[in-house]
Amino acid sequence: MALYVYKFGGTSVGTVERIKAVADKVKKARDAGDQIVVVVSAMSGETNRLVALAKDMQTQPTEREMDVLLSTGEQVTIALLCMALHNVGCDASSYTGSQVKILTDSSHTKARIREIEDAKIRADLDAGKVVVVAGFQGVDEEGNITTLGRGGSDTTGVALAAALKADECHIYTDVDGVYTTDPRVVPKARRLDKITFEEMLEMASLGSKVLQIRSVEFAGKYNVALRVLSSFAEGNGTLITYEESEMERALISGIAFNRDEAKLTLAGVPDLPGVASKILGPIAAENIEVDMIVQNVGANGATDFTFTVNRNDYVRAKNVLEALRTELGAQIVSGDDSIVKVSIVGVGMRSHAGIASTMFKVLADEGINIQMISTSEIKISVVIAEKYLELAVRALHTAFGLDQA
Amino acid sequence: MALYVYKFGGTSVGTVERIKAVADKVKKARDAGDQIVVVVSAMSGETNRLVALAKDMQTQPTEREMDVLLSTGEQVTIALLCMALHNVGCDASSYTGSQVKILTDSSHTKARIREIEDAKIRADLDAGKVVVVAGFQGVDEEGNITTLGRGGSDTTGVALAAALKADECHIYTDVDGVYTTDPRVVPKARRLDKITFEEMLEMASLGSKVLQIRSVEFAGKYNVALRVLSSFAEGNGTLITYEESEMERALISGIAFNRDEAKLTLAGVPDLPGVASKILGPIAAENIEVDMIVQNVGANGATDFTFTVNRNDYVRAKNVLEALRTELGAQIVSGDDSIVKVSIVGVGMRSHAGIASTMFKVLADEGINIQMISTSEIKISVVIAEKYLELAVRALHTAFGLDQA
Repeated sequence: MALYVYKFGGTSVGTVERIKAVADKVKKARDAGDQIVVVVSAMSGETNRLVALAKDMQTQPTEREMDVLLSTGEQVTIALLCMALHNVGCDASSYTGSQVKILTDSSHTKARIREIEDAKIRADLDAGKVVVVAGFQGVDEEGNITTLGRGGSDTTGVALAAALKADECHIYTDVDGVYTTDPRVVPKARRLDKITFEEMLEMASLGSKVLQIRSVEFAGKYNVALRVLSSFAEGNGTLITYEESEMERALISGIAFNRDEAKLTLAGVPDLPGVASKILGPIAAENIEVDMIVQNVGANGATDFTFTVNRNDYVRAKNVLEALRTELGAQIVSGDDSIVKVSIVGVGMRSHAGIASTMFKVLADEGINIQMISTSEIKISVVIAEKYLELAVRALHTAFGLDQA
Repeated sequence: MALYVYKFGGTSVGTVERIKAVADKVKKARDAGDQIVVVVSAMSGETNRLVALAKDMQTQPTEREMDVLLSTGEQVTIALLCMALHNVGCDASSYTGSQVKILTDSSHTKARIREIEDAKIRADLDAGKVVVVAGFQGVDEEGNITTLGRGGSDTTGVALAAALKADECHIYTDVDGVYTTDPRVVPKARRLDKITFEEMLEMASLGSKVLQIRSVEFAGKYNVALRVLSSFAEGNGTLITYEESEMERALISGIAFNRDEAKLTLAGVPDLPGVASKILGPIAAENIEVDMIVQNVGANGATDFTFTVNRNDYVRAKNVLEALRTELGAQIVSGDDSIVKVSIVGVGMRSHAGIASTMFKVLADEGINIQMISTSEIKISVVIAEKYLELAVRALHTAFGLDQA
């Protein structure tokens, strides 16, 4: 008898029919002898409906009351799923975050889980029941309702799996697993049977939308085996787990890319200590997040400082640099919002030299100019012109042996 | 500084604009120096939407899960109302039934309140905040969400007023008070400034829909001064309170009527002990509620047994009687579903003789035949043919001096 935590997102429980399909899937697993805890999100569209109501009340609603409001979304789903389970003869009980209880800090709309009480869940599982828990929500020490922020239901699923020492945490979604890259860009993209936590983290931070970064971190930290599967199709999905030494690993596991980037350069800055913070301080003060940073010192004692930001922040960031130009004695502010970031990811990089040079050669052979480079232990990212995106990803996909047989 | 509990029903919080209007009303009272606790229902339509979703899942959803589902309706309203209050610069905090906490028994969908913890509410009021509480819901000893059943938000309001020893509990609704009778039937009907709990109970049980019976009982028991007012118009409404000896009381306070009645008679039943229970037992077994009962013993040792039921139960009740006829040796089963009950209500009856005979004479003068009579200490009810309803109510309204000046 194994214990699984199943997490279903908003699309998977978006209609009456889909909730019934989830009930069927859960009942099948329970009847096969497994213990099942289900974590659900709000029905798709419900959170948007509630947010719109809130905005009608107040331009900037209080976070405490937003949490009271939004947490009703999952509460509706847990009740409906339990009814659907009862309807197919599967005993089940629902719990809100407060009821479980999932204790969090008091950071409304972005709370962190501190502790999960598992007594009620264990008692229900031992009694042969399926337990249905509201994702995304918790309760603080004072009994205030909190929510975990975007993608919080994934985090609830992983945290519950950790607390219950579940065999696996299944994240059901609208894709059937993690792919070597986006199949819409590379038709030959392959579903991975396995991927390591670290690789998944890099893929997620690079724009792969399959899983919420926080839940992957959490799963890695507490060693929860995470499996991404389709709610709508059969299949084993992709298992995210620790690296196994005997695993026959490919050099790289996947290629991620991000279209939401824009590049800014402050050129000809006198190279004095503290230049970087003098530039990035005012950027941070505007609440603009910086991604890649490259600084080159030229022979003339001046430096070119280049960084990327989210494309939505491009104009604001450029205005900040214009204001700084005179103050810092810089020569030119330039920028480009038609760039993309392409990254190759793989734990195989650790033990194989020459992967970076292979990547650069593949791009050069296609006539693609690399504008920026950034590397980590298991990832190499380059910034290129947006028009080369598909060409670059397909060429790299083939060159690193990721194409489907 | 007075402490008031304001209760707003679903219609009063049915739209964004109405919630904002409630916020304005509450802020005005707070700014005038009063402490305000607001109890709200789900936005009108929301409960029906949730019930429909539940029915899609299961023909007869589990009551525990119904409570989890339905309690989200009020939870949405408390958050939205707090946002609207914040938006007009009025500090406020929301509480679900669990958070207050409003402890109930475990009878899901019809729970009874056992105890209310008032610590959080008092602390917030002392800090100058308005407190917004979800009506209709509570929590049992095990932490399960419960609901109080139909009209439960009124009960929450009264129970909170009792627990907090509030000066008055205001029930805001779509009428501006309690009337001497239905103004749609008698245009001269007057709004009452005051009415006693007992009178209000009789009016409510006789079909006046202004207040939920249970909340009036509760208010009477705990001596909570209850005021019925309009959410949409100014005015002092009707105060429901204990009889004051010095009060200059009219003989009767109001005239209630109920169109939902049907009459059944089993005639010529041999008059033996236990006949009544032999008839009403099978009726009760069919879950049919009986209202008025009249039994006459004739000279021939046979009895005619007549009672009224809700018009919706008429056919089923008649079938039960047909089945009993032979068994009880009765002669005839007859019935009439075109009857109504008209009642006059007033604590003045206690100290004034002759009110019943005045009532009967007024009806006789109009040529209206009385089919059944039932009396209590402060009420006289008669059953008459439905076609005479308006005539009877108007004649009685005039005869007992209730017409507007």
